[in-house]
Amino acid sequence: MNVYTFIEEMERLAPPDLAEDFDAGKIGLIVEGEPEFSTVCCALDATPAVVKEAIRQKAGMLVVHHTPLWTPLTSVTGSTAALMRDVLSARMNLWVMHTNYDHAEEGVNDALSELLSLSDRVPLSLGLVGSCSITPDEISRRLGCPLRIWGDLTSVNRLAVVAGSGFDPALLTEAKAGGAGAFLSAELKHSVYRSTPLPCIEATHYALEAPAMKRLAARRGWHYIDDIPMLRTIP
Amino acid sequence: MNVYTFIEEMERLAPPDLAEDFDAGKIGLIVEGEPEFSTVCCALDATPAVVKEAIRQKAGMLVVHHTPLWTPLTSVTGSTAALMRDVLSARMNLWVMHTNYDHAEEGVNDALSELLSLSDRVPLSLGLVGSCSITPDEISRRLGCPLRIWGDLTSVNRLAVVAGSGFDPALLTEAKAGGAGAFLSAELKHSVYRSTPLPCIEATHYALEAPAMKRLAARRGWHYIDDIPMLRTIP
Amino acid sequence: MNVYTFIEEMERLAPPDLAEDFDAGKIGLIVEGEPEFSTVCCALDATPAVVKEAIRQKAGMLVVHHTPLWTPLTSVTGSTAALMRDVLSARMNLWVMHTNYDHAEEGVNDALSELLSLSDRVPLSLGLVGSCSITPDEISRRLGCPLRIWGDLTSVNRLAVVAGSGFDPALLTEAKAGGAGAFLSAELKHSVYRSTPLPCIEATHYALEAPAMKRLAARRGWHYIDDIPMLRTIP
Amino acid sequence: MNVYTFIEEMERLAPPDLAEDFDAGKIGLIVEGEPEFSTVCCALDATPAVVKEAIRQKAGMLVVHHTPLWTPLTSVTGSTAALMRDVLSARMNLWVMHTNYDHAEEGVNDALSELLSLSDRVPLSLGLVGSCSITPDEISRRLGCPLRIWGDLTSVNRLAVVAGSGFDPALLTEAKAGGAGAFLSAELKHSVYRSTPLPCIEATHYALEAPAMKRLAARRGWHYIDDIPMLRTIP
Amino acid sequence: MNVYTFIEEMERLAPPDLAEDFDAGKIGLIVEGEPEFSTVCCALDATPAVVKEAIRQKAGMLVVHHTPLWTPLTSVTGSTAALMRDVLSARMNLWVMHTNYDHAEEGVNDALSELLSLSDRVPLSLGLVGSCSITPDEISRRLGCPLRIWGDLTSVNRLAVVAGSGFDPALLTEAKAGGAGAFLSAELKHSVYRSTPLPCIEATHYALEAPAMKRLAARRGWHYIDDIPMLRTIP
Amino acid sequence: MNVYTFIEEMERLAPPDLAEDFDAGKIGLIVEGEPEFSTVCCALDATPAVVKEAIRQKAGMLVVHHTPLWTPLTSVTGSTAALMRDVLSARMNLWVMHTNYDHAEEGVNDALSELLSLSDRVPLSLGLVGSCSITPDEISRRLGCPLRIWGDLTSVNRLAVVAGSGFDPALLTEAKAGGAGAFLSAELKHSVYRSTPLPCIEATHYALEAPAMKRLAARRGWHYIDDIPMLRTIP
Repeated sequence: MNVYTFIEEMERLAPPDLAEDFDAGKIGLIVEGEPEFSTVCCALDATPAVVKEAIRQKAGMLVVHHTPLWTPLTSVTGSTAALMRDVLSARMNLWVMHTNYDHAEEGVNDALSELLSLSDRVPLSLGLVGSCSITPDEISRRLGCPLRIWGDLTSVNRLAVVAGSGFDPALLTEAKAGGAGAFLSAELKHSVYRSTPLPCIEATHYALEAPAMKRLAARRGWHYIDDIPMLRTIP
Repeated sequence: MNVYTFIEEMERLAPPDLAEDFDAGKIGLIVEGEPEFSTVCCALDATPAVVKEAIRQKAGMLVVHHTPLWTPLTSVTGSTAALMRDVLSARMNLWVMHTNYDHAEEGVNDALSELLSLSDRVPLSLGLVGSCSITPDEISRRLGCPLRIWGDLTSVNRLAVVAGSGFDPALLTEAKAGGAGAFLSAELKHSVYRSTPLPCIEATHYALEAPAMKRLAARRGWHYIDDIPMLRTIP
Repeated sequence: MNVYTFIEEMERLAPPDLAEDFDAGKIGLIVEGEPEFSTVCCALDATPAVVKEAIRQKAGMLVVHHTPLWTPLTSVTGSTAALMRDVLSARMNLWVMHTNYDHAEEGVNDALSELLSLSDRVPLSLGLVGSCSITPDEISRRLGCPLRIWGDLTSVNRLAVVAGSGFDPALLTEAKAGGAGAFLSAELKHSVYRSTPLPCIEATHYALEAPAMKRLAARRGWHYIDDIPMLRTIP
Repeated sequence: MNVYTFIEEMERLAPPDLAEDFDAGKIGLIVEGEPEFSTVCCALDATPAVVKEAIRQKAGMLVVHHTPLWTPLTSVTGSTAALMRDVLSARMNLWVMHTNYDHAEEGVNDALSELLSLSDRVPLSLGLVGSCSITPDEISRRLGCPLRIWGDLTSVNRLAVVAGSGFDPALLTEAKAGGAGAFLSAELKHSVYRSTPLPCIEATHYALEAPAMKRLAARRGWHYIDDIPMLRTIP
Repeated sequence: MNVYTFIEEMERLAPPDLAEDFDAGKIGLIVEGEPEFSTVCCALDATPAVVKEAIRQKAGMLVVHHTPLWTPLTSVTGSTAALMRDVLSARMNLWVMHTNYDHAEEGVNDALSELLSLSDRVPLSLGLVGSCSITPDEISRRLGCPLRIWGDLTSVNRLAVVAGSGFDPALLTEAKAGGAGAFLSAELKHSVYRSTPLPCIEATHYALEAPAMKRLAARRGWHYIDDIPMLRTIP
Repeated sequence: MNVYTFIEEMERLAPPDLAEDFDAGKIGLIVEGEPEFSTVCCALDATPAVVKEAIRQKAGMLVVHHTPLWTPLTSVTGSTAALMRDVLSARMNLWVMHTNYDHAEEGVNDALSELLSLSDRVPLSLGLVGSCSITPDEISRRLGCPLRIWGDLTSVNRLAVVAGSGFDPALLTEAKAGGAGAFLSAELKHSVYRSTPLPCIEATHYALEAPAMKRLAARRGWHYIDDIPMLRTIP
């Protein structure tokens, strides 16, 4: 496949115009490699392990959700130098789709909802509220990560889900007004918890966003490379 | 006690000069009540429950770590109106010590270290590294909150602790260089985890900072009012 | 009356969209009290005296032109604490309409023009020019404040009026071009006077804006509470 | 006299270092004319009338308190072109001393205090407080302008004076704490009046600052050119 | 001719709306002189020599491309005072047309192209590309300035020209894509040269922009005043 | 040699503290390669040709004056990708010393002065003034580039030199006051020329700065790689 054809397809899937302003210059073709390639790999993050595995699979293109060059660079040292050396030497392209994918139809929240079998979905300004017929234990099992339950969780009948770091006071209020009985996302801050109008189910950022990349890989015949954070709870 | 005498004591304990710039105008006497009082209560946050209990105890002064007026106000509505009505009607004073207390001798990290029996302590630019002879299970028990363990935790012999939200890449690097084998704090972000040089032990913000307020209350004969976040893990 | 019904009516009268950007967050329901009330009071400023009188009249709502919370607050002390204690304890709502009311039909400049019997009115970018058939002495009498006359005032046939603090060089030029022979407003600065193209009649801010609040109160059956600045001239 | 000698003397009198930051580039030699001159005129403002009179008196230097080039210029048109044409064609120098003179020993507040015979003077962060043995009527007479008296003026025994536009809330509070019973300055705003801790005596900006320029002219043998604002009160 | 008639004509020729934002306040009637005049002079810059010659020719209006008041003024001293004295004393008007003229039809790039006999012109976002049938030596002769040739210039068949300081990386790329074989402009920076995709022909800023002013003067019957920079090359 | 030993030596030679603020993050170890190396190459710019030659010479370290990563990067594409691929794949380190070297003893201006045999040198705030006994033709020959002579150059007895892009109005004035009869630098702008108090000799940026890198290479036994801009003049 040619990189220009690939770019066209990707921009149809997750149009750059949908991205938040803070993603300017941080999505799309982030590292340019060979213009022609046959194998595409996909992952949530371009970690060293993911990159090495993609190279081992002779990928000409690696598609990820989070750019490894978030902070603008004026020098290339340490782990960044190692990563860039691997990617550039292998002439592997690196494609990032971040908030443009979050906002796209069939994006991260849609894949997450599918995984949790949410029905009767109503969109929020970010994420959505849907009817949930599985238990928190089953949510944990499907996501593949332990959960932290904040507050008095009595019902997940109507569940708000926001993939990524979505515990925002305004979103919580919107979800409550939209009939949600609980809110599932990642990275809850103390100050937000203190005034939350809903019980919060805190998963990992990875567990909430990886399903979309996995599903995308499956649909397009790419190789998904998993790199699950190592996490356990005590007690 | 007179409020001016009290202010003098408090400013000796946690000098305003030690505060970060972002705390300007957000520490000290945040709500002015009766100038003379006898009962002092103390808590981590001025939640509605804490305020009601302090009033029930006829406190003339409530000392907290986190201001309830963080976002500058041009209107007083909703839960803020309810809180301010309670505090002002009761003519209760409200005193906040935040980063000035974090940076003070015998401040939040000192109390946390004492609770965890850390010895041979070496200061970091925030927090410290100390020798830890208790297990993660015992850490969880003493803190009174479940823990999330990120990464391959093999040893807590030398443990870095930063009360509050302290998982900062620069601090993690500093702690690693300082000999730490693990890092205990709250509110770990995915992007920080992805490049952490140390296994991370994630407690709650409350559990890490409350010990300092409790110890302060005990030492000064104030009533400490606990308001522990409701949290459990699945599975 | 219910507060939501009241808000709807007020927003029809002085739509929030008409406000200047600097009024963002500083108009509308500034203090939230009881949602149901029967008595409404009205004044130009929420001074301590006005608030005490409104409480004495058992007002559930006080409507003013100038917010008492102009400077964003991160602490509530001194006279602000006293004012907020009175308002909150009485569960009185506080409603502010400022530049949205200035720009509304039938707003501050309209009421002022009516009081001065101005006819043939032509709008300026702020305020208006109208034909005036009364003398400066009569203007002073109707406004209820002494005047300062700057420059060689020979005629007020066509008078520009801008309620509040309106002596702006661009407005003065516009008024002159619009045929005005004098300009009535408040708070004239030396540097503006030095290059004014028109004689200036300086009243008090209060005297120019109070008529609109008085007329509004009369029309809606509210109690207007006067709190006229104490002012005399020498000689 | 040579202009360099003159500059040296002036900078000793009112050192540029004493000026506020907003005066950067707006004090000192504002228009450069002939380097040698014999006649110096002085005024508060470089108004057209003042400039014409100075030229009539064949002044080689005009010293003023307020620069006529406050707003930075990228074009020279209208009244500015007329003024600059007069000054430049006459090769008259223009010297400005503004906040550097306000802050100098023997500056504007000193001259004002002398005119009002204030004794036992104590400095404020701007202006001063002094004992005053003359009546408000006599103050008006000496200043040569009508006064507006705001609030309940019962005593001017200890009077705070700030030449220019000095009704600042922090200054008023400082003056009250310093024992003042009244505060004399110019250009009082409504919002400041509403919370003033002291009665305010409002003179004109000109009347408060001209004495310093007059006294300076008298001491140095310059010609002072008066250009008093035309002002009367009604009733 | 009356100045208002003149302004109307000039604004038709080079509409102020076409100017770049950085020209705000720096184009149009920059110095206001007599409203009636008969003689108009024209030059690229309002240098002292140009101004003196225009006055000698009794010009009532001088039209230039570069304002002499680029940096906003709060004082008028040194060479600026000398220049302003000459212009204002002579009551000569000064008209500036800068980027509004660059962007106008028949503007600076059009005149330059005509001088170089460029045909088949295609516009760039600034400047244009045209077919060039003369040699670099002849270009130098027609421009009246020596040239610096950067890079391996093999052909000027299709030549990009941007009057003024136009060696911008984005423009160079655009010109290359538009078929240009060389790029003619002024003031090439080292860093731009280092990544230029085209050989660069560097003339003087004056030589590239003067033709437009000369042609304008010729068409409207004005006197063009030449003030060519003194330049030679070694060896 | 180990890279840490090298860094220590380099920071002694051109201390990072001497750099201008705009160089923050853009000097020092800009690309990290093998920590142990034996061959060091040196050039003015890290152009593609320079990098390829350094790799051919098996350099483990390339020292340059201008960073190739001036604009902060969030993607690595096009010529930057090609350059970074070469450097990273070869595991070559890249060291940049820019304004820290300009300001160092024995820095760029010193090497330039030595090349031109300037004596009796007096420092300017940037660059210096020295006695010059060679002709402009000889200056051109030694620099290895053609010169542009602006203005009426009668003498280079006392010559100001500023390596790089140094034609700044304030520097020109300082050089004139310091007795210079001409000013040698690169990249003269039209507006600066129009008010220059001195004749200007314009060389190339490369010719003025390369001598310092050449001399440094010679002194330390590094290989200097020349990449002279291709430049000729017409006529």
